[in-house]
Amino acid sequence: MSEILATYLVHDHNGNLEKKAEGIALGLTIGSWTELPQLEQEQLRKHKGRVVSVKELSSNDRVNSYLGNTVTRGIIQIAYPSFNYSNDLPAILTTVFGKLSLDGEIKLIDLEFSNDLKLAYPGPKFGIEGLRSITDVHHRPFVMSIFKGVIGRDLDYLTDQLKEQALGGVDFIKDDEILFENDLTPFEKRITEGKRILEEVKEETGHRARYAVNLTGRTLELKDKAKRAVELGADFLLFNVFAYGLDTLQSLAEDKEVSIPIMAHPAVSGAVTPSEFYGISNELLLGKLLRYAGADFSLFPSPYGSVALPKEQALGIRDALTVADNQFKSTLPVPSAGIHPGLVPLLYQDFGNDAVINAGGGVHGHKLGGAAGAKAFRQAVDAVKAGESLTAYAQKHPELEVALKQWGSVEVTT
Amino acid sequence: MSEILATYLVHDHNGNLEKKAEGIALGLTIGSWTELPQLEQEQLRKHKGRVVSVKELSSNDRVNSYLGNTVTRGIIQIAYPSFNYSNDLPAILTTVFGKLSLDGEIKLIDLEFSNDLKLAYPGPKFGIEGLRSITDVHHRPFVMSIFKGVIGRDLDYLTDQLKEQALGGVDFIKDDEILFENDLTPFEKRITEGKRILEEVKEETGHRARYAVNLTGRTLELKDKAKRAVELGADFLLFNVFAYGLDTLQSLAEDKEVSIPIMAHPAVSGAVTPSEFYGISNELLLGKLLRYAGADFSLFPSPYGSVALPKEQALGIRDALTVADNQFKSTLPVPSAGIHPGLVPLLYQDFGNDAVINAGGGVHGHKLGGAAGAKAFRQAVDAVKAGESLTAYAQKHPELEVALKQWGSVEVTT
Ligand SMILES: [Mg+2]
Ligand SMILES: [Mg+2]
Repeated sequence: MSEILATYLVHDHNGNLEKKAEGIALGLTIGSWTELPQLEQEQLRKHKGRVVSVKELSSNDRVNSYLGNTVTRGIIQIAYPSFNYSNDLPAILTTVFGKLSLDGEIKLIDLEFSNDLKLAYPGPKFGIEGLRSITDVHHRPFVMSIFKGVIGRDLDYLTDQLKEQALGGVDFIKDDEILFENDLTPFEKRITEGKRILEEVKEETGHRARYAVNLTGRTLELKDKAKRAVELGADFLLFNVFAYGLDTLQSLAEDKEVSIPIMAHPAVSGAVTPSEFYGISNELLLGKLLRYAGADFSLFPSPYGSVALPKEQALGIRDALTVADNQFKSTLPVPSAGIHPGLVPLLYQDFGNDAVINAGGGVHGHKLGGAAGAKAFRQAVDAVKAGESLTAYAQKHPELEVALKQWGSVEVTT
Repeated sequence: MSEILATYLVHDHNGNLEKKAEGIALGLTIGSWTELPQLEQEQLRKHKGRVVSVKELSSNDRVNSYLGNTVTRGIIQIAYPSFNYSNDLPAILTTVFGKLSLDGEIKLIDLEFSNDLKLAYPGPKFGIEGLRSITDVHHRPFVMSIFKGVIGRDLDYLTDQLKEQALGGVDFIKDDEILFENDLTPFEKRITEGKRILEEVKEETGHRARYAVNLTGRTLELKDKAKRAVELGADFLLFNVFAYGLDTLQSLAEDKEVSIPIMAHPAVSGAVTPSEFYGISNELLLGKLLRYAGADFSLFPSPYGSVALPKEQALGIRDALTVADNQFKSTLPVPSAGIHPGLVPLLYQDFGNDAVINAGGGVHGHKLGGAAGAKAFRQAVDAVKAGESLTAYAQKHPELEVALKQWGSVEVTT
């Protein structure tokens, strides 16, 4: 069957999940059914939404007391025939969660695309394998750092910071997502000067870090700007997908001339994902849909920081990005925020090799400076891969030693 | 000052709103301040976010018990200097609510643009005055109806329904927002056949209803498709803004060749607006930002139906769409869902002349058919404008009489 299967978490005030599910399946497709003449039923059958499953969840006192009503919580699944929509994400989202998003306490948990529908989506152009081949980093997690405090700073300041991070041996460096087109550090200059610096560091150390430049501006100008970035030799693009729309990411990803990896930033996605009652799940939005639409990297809140995702959601995003798929490459998971070198064993346990260890404060806040901060991360990764404890490894590696003193470390118990 | 002033509703677990506000103002701009050398402070001062106000709200037991913690609720305002971002909605949303949207229980309530920044936005091309001049309807609320059950139906079915609604005297008829490009009723055919039917009805009755056709497809193709619609003689465009992005609406609105009104549908916006803790307020998203980005109509849930907005939010959207503005035309408010003729006096009391009375079931479900359903609405409007009670007016108008028997009516007490 050519269809989209949508899974919802519902909170029903009428105690009848079956009826609610039927109402949705009809209301979002052909409108009515039982009162239709036989002939019209024949004609419309292939357009009719179909309730696939209805599962009641246990009642939740905390939720009931907050909503001021005893609600029936449940997971319902509805299949939407592809006859009803064009196969693009705006049409699919409007069908499965357009009007319905306005319809009380309901959250969109998952979408399953039948194989024929998946074919319309590009998936990551590079994916994890492609990024390993670009970087020649094969048997460890990647390490990424982000700029710190670059708003209002000039190009020298920015490239100095870039150089320091690269010298520390990080694999990737991303622009601050709030750095837009500006006179001090214009997009094109960031690309060309950034490249020059990173090549210099490579001459000096043999290590070539990759820099993700922030692709910003008006929606209709993004593609030309992305192509210009490629011409100028940009390594990667950073992109605030949710300030634009998933379909815009898809258009960038499926363009052959946008021939560099795209890093999706989760900015603004927190307007949609965190509520227990409303919105779209993190696993779907930052996981599956980013992958289908073509993100090579997906950044999302780590489960460790002060502002943390629940661990099962962070791991759910990872799974959606990397589960074996007959069509799509895997998207590289980047659990972010609150990361310091002492967390690397835990990160490795939770996310494995195919992930990025991404830090801002944990690099730049290092007492010996950003290069040392970056080194400490690489050392922590080396320790974990060598099967050594961080404490033991730190005895021979002063940058890691300082980092552990500064931020502590988390024991991993397996 | 050239800046954006953002207002947030925050729920702080640390009981220090001032500190939270300062953290946001710095974190989303220059990163740090007090520890900077004097010279750098001089250089960065114009980029620094500024806490404008902090107001604590009363504690809320229901919220505390739900969150499992006593939180300090407050309204904080932060000004973001325009030096920090390009003046486009993706950059502004990323600055004021990018990372911050992921940062705990925080909701974006309002944005105020300084006058110089507002100039970059088109506002409605027609607005309420333009729509009155197109339709020659001047001293009453407009009446709109929507198609019912058109998925899987052919062009004859669709045009029959269109004709019936037009015969009933509605001013506007909108496509179902879940009707996409399809073989049975393709976009271009809907425009040309729709126009033919509406002109026929005009020949017959003197009344020309306007039809809003659903503009759908891939983001980068929308502009060409909109221009093609104009060439073919489309009256209006319906657009699922939130399945794409506000910036895409803006690009359509600011294009001179897209020379017809745009009706913004709220599909998918319920993923963002309804939570008390997260997301973006209805007044900002369906009100101010749609107006700035150029919607001529804004549909939003009425405060009357089974799935209703709280009345203060619906009226807040209306205010944001229509408040006097030195630059922008007004956007026409369309409170939708749950509307029947008996509600017209209440709708009129709440929304006045400058609004659309929009109904689906209340038109098509009328016992005497859709044309009678539409007539009943026009009669209810005439009654209200004549200062007569619906019951009295219904004695001389059988369609209204049937509607009142069918759905009842709501007394208006002033
Ligand atoms: Mg940042
Ligand atoms: Mg509809």
